[in-house]
Amino acid sequence: MTSQAMESTGNWKVTIWEEENFQGRHCEFLVECPNVMERGFRKIRSIKVESGPWIGYEYPEFQGQQCVLEQGDYPHWEAWSGNSSYRTEHLLSFRTIKCANHSDCKVTLYNGENFQGRKFELRDDYPSLQAMGWCNKEVPSIKVNSGAWVAYQYPGYHGYQYVLERDHHAGEYKSYRAYSTQAHTNQIQSIRRVQH
Amino acid sequence: MTSQAMESTGNWKVTIWEEENFQGRHCEFLVECPNVMERGFRKIRSIKVESGPWIGYEYPEFQGQQCVLEQGDYPHWEAWSGNSSYRTEHLLSFRTIKCANHSDCKVTLYNGENFQGRKFELRDDYPSLQAMGWCNKEVPSIKVNSGAWVAYQYPGYHGYQYVLERDHHAGEYKSYRAYSTQAHTNQIQSIRRVQH
Repeated sequence: MTSQAMESTGNWKVTIWEEENFQGRHCEFLVECPNVMERGFRKIRSIKVESGPWIGYEYPEFQGQQCVLEQGDYPHWEAWSGNSSYRTEHLLSFRTIKCANHSDCKVTLYNGENFQGRKFELRDDYPSLQAMGWCNKEVPSIKVNSGAWVAYQYPGYHGYQYVLERDHHAGEYKSYRAYSTQAHTNQIQSIRRVQH
Repeated sequence: MTSQAMESTGNWKVTIWEEENFQGRHCEFLVECPNVMERGFRKIRSIKVESGPWIGYEYPEFQGQQCVLEQGDYPHWEAWSGNSSYRTEHLLSFRTIKCANHSDCKVTLYNGENFQGRKFELRDDYPSLQAMGWCNKEVPSIKVNSGAWVAYQYPGYHGYQYVLERDHHAGEYKSYRAYSTQAHTNQIQSIRRVQH
């Protein structure tokens, strides 16, 4: 067991079910799972997060579309998917997210790639970056100074999700391609802190 | 023109289109619209909010499912709908929302109807009420002390949306039936401030 996995034990707990509304085959996890198919699951249709946060991925090995999973009940896929045109029933891997306290979170947005150009430092949630004064719909690069954040394609926390962590990539996302192994868009219109 | 409408002029602006990606017939609004069909629209498929926030409703006269619309681009229905099992293309009325500054917002949740029982005072966004210590998935009554908030069925700001305002119902929501003219659920798992 790696030290990261040991740290996770006891602090994170998620249960997945093969059918909606917490029915059918289920399994509980305290540490990351790189491939639920290896546990005999072919799909996930409901999720209960008893202690979070977690990040779920469309494909094994933490690839593809991302969904942040904070404490609570997700009785069917649309409760976790921010992108309803694509039914992300197939969360096939997931791992824990390390957060900071809400008041300690900080992220810096840059209007050029590689942390160039005009920058905005944020310490709060922004359901509309445009309303804050950000003129573009793109965010070319992002530095997470502390905590974990989730950025969204559309205002009001809708659309594709990209989890951004201080403890991943050293918090440095030099271009939109760094947001994800499979970034579906370079548009970011809202951003918020991930909650413990 | 009512005093409310006069106040709105210049501070709010939204444009609606009949087709996705800001195509086809369109119309700009500076004040509330109780029925877009009276303007010749049979549907809305994309929306641009130049100055907000607004609230959109499924039916005329501010009835039915609600969608909060903060500044930004909504190129198709799933960018604004929190409930993807029901395609809310038919936002048929909308009105402006009055907010407070983010730092001045306050809301109180009660675990009994009519503001009875244990209470929680919130001044920040909570993507998971359970993570904050709220034990139920229901919120029987809510008092908005200042600003405007939006409560969601699922964690992470997914599912049905209920806009809660200090300047509406005097901020008093005595039971879940008061959240909406057509409350689809009494579950609330996340809540956040609405942004100017």
